[in-house]
Amino acid sequence: MLFHGLSAFPITPASAEGRVNGEELSALLRRLADAGVDSVGLLGSTGSYMYLSRQERRRAVEIAAETLAGATPLMVGVGALRTDEAVALAIDSAAAGADGLLLAPVSYLPLSEDEVFAHFAAVAGATELPLCIYNNPLATHFSFSNALLARLAAVPRIVAVKNPSAPVVENPERHAALRHLLPDHFALGYSGDWNAAAAILAGGSCWYSVIGGLLPGPTLKLARAAQAGDTAETARLNQAFEPLWSLFRELTGYRVVYAAANAMGLTSAQPPRPILPLSDEDRRRVTAAIENLAAI
Amino acid sequence: MLFHGLSAFPITPASAEGRVNGEELSALLRRLADAGVDSVGLLGSTGSYMYLSRQERRRAVEIAAETLAGATPLMVGVGALRTDEAVALAIDSAAAGADGLLLAPVSYLPLSEDEVFAHFAAVAGATELPLCIYNNPLATHFSFSNALLARLAAVPRIVAVKNPSAPVVENPERHAALRHLLPDHFALGYSGDWNAAAAILAGGSCWYSVIGGLLPGPTLKLARAAQAGDTAETARLNQAFEPLWSLFRELTGYRVVYAAANAMGLTSAQPPRPILPLSDEDRRRVTAAIENLAAI
Repeated sequence: MLFHGLSAFPITPASAEGRVNGEELSALLRRLADAGVDSVGLLGSTGSYMYLSRQERRRAVEIAAETLAGATPLMVGVGALRTDEAVALAIDSAAAGADGLLLAPVSYLPLSEDEVFAHFAAVAGATELPLCIYNNPLATHFSFSNALLARLAAVPRIVAVKNPSAPVVENPERHAALRHLLPDHFALGYSGDWNAAAAILAGGSCWYSVIGGLLPGPTLKLARAAQAGDTAETARLNQAFEPLWSLFRELTGYRVVYAAANAMGLTSAQPPRPILPLSDEDRRRVTAAIENLAAI
Repeated sequence: MLFHGLSAFPITPASAEGRVNGEELSALLRRLADAGVDSVGLLGSTGSYMYLSRQERRRAVEIAAETLAGATPLMVGVGALRTDEAVALAIDSAAAGADGLLLAPVSYLPLSEDEVFAHFAAVAGATELPLCIYNNPLATHFSFSNALLARLAAVPRIVAVKNPSAPVVENPERHAALRHLLPDHFALGYSGDWNAAAAILAGGSCWYSVIGGLLPGPTLKLARAAQAGDTAETARLNQAFEPLWSLFRELTGYRVVYAAANAMGLTSAQPPRPILPLSDEDRRRVTAAIENLAAI
């Protein structure tokens, strides 16, 4: 079920020096598998892929492949600034047991559409694994046009896109317009947790979820309601998430899930510097927002 | 004369695999020293710092320090996504012979002002070298407020900023407004070649120049005219650069100087993939724009 249903993106607990904590990562992944998420998105933005060395990224994939043991499909983020590095990360991930790849067009100097196309074709051609396009303009500073997505969808093994949900919530016809340009087999899914349920109701195939990587139980309830087209239940559940979404919008999902994982006793790991941990006051707000989800 | 006059930013010729070509880099640097630039900005954005490994960055600094041999001050870009990496690069650069550091707040996840402040304080505290703040919102996706610049100017060894020139050309009072907030010893300079001469006329202490890293002779003429406050001569010289500025705006300075260095026979190196070399047609336009500068 790669690229369909709920794809859960865990943090990657690591030391201040960037050494992955294998036991904590494994425990986080077991929670996801036990809850029944449809796939795991390892080393996404939430998983700090851009802040970890090639060696540690490979270790994280090995730990995840061993923990999930084929029962839950494993997608791995292989983004890098250089094309040869992204290719090497893809080969590493395939060798270490990944079931699929997730690739963002990370940039320093702004990239053209032709540059992004060639980058994606090189990585897709490096392994036998299916590849999902990671369209995250806020972090990568590149936004895929519908025309470029359609062009990439014709490349072998590029089979899915993780698109931002906000534009679809703003105008639900955007989903159908893009869907129309893509092959039937191509999976059009969404990220951006606070809008994702609405994007699934609009027809999205997958919710690529930050909170799903930490609270898979409540997130699955919301995902399943949206997948079933149950607008009333989706709205009711989404309302319970609203205090958390509000903190995501204010403080970023990344910083909030670290604080939440700390509060839940799952890890004492902090985000990599220069990213700072939340203040004690913000941590209290995060804890209250999580408790709000206990009853759903 | 670090942070004053013309600071020339060369490309870093490297193989497709990211191995620095020491002979070609050394030859590029000798051209700059012979022309009499006030400083060299090694491993800036033009020098592909974000696309080279720590080992190759250290090698480039060693080659530059040996080539320049103290006669021309050497500033080195030490930006990295992780604070500990930027600190390590600063220590490497100091050990390898740099005279100053240039630090950009490279980001993947957007950074807060407090995060950038702590990042800069950590790097500035890692060596005895003076440090220039590299404010490049297009590439780093962080824009320094005047208040944050003033706060950083109080940190020991943070003594200069490389600010974008366009806002000052749009409104020359911006230079004086920021200047007023900074200590007298703090150097306020500019980058963005096609607006830089105007920013120097407005009072900027330094032009951090892409084209100065390849064509130091003509660029020094323009810089000296602007430093002397000779508006007529500055305008005359700037007009000769206009065909090149037009290509910089259209194709980026980075891609253009690679093509120009190729055309001049200084290197056959290309930008690191995913960045693609210019088309043959664009290369012809670059060659014509350079020839336009021969007569000034």
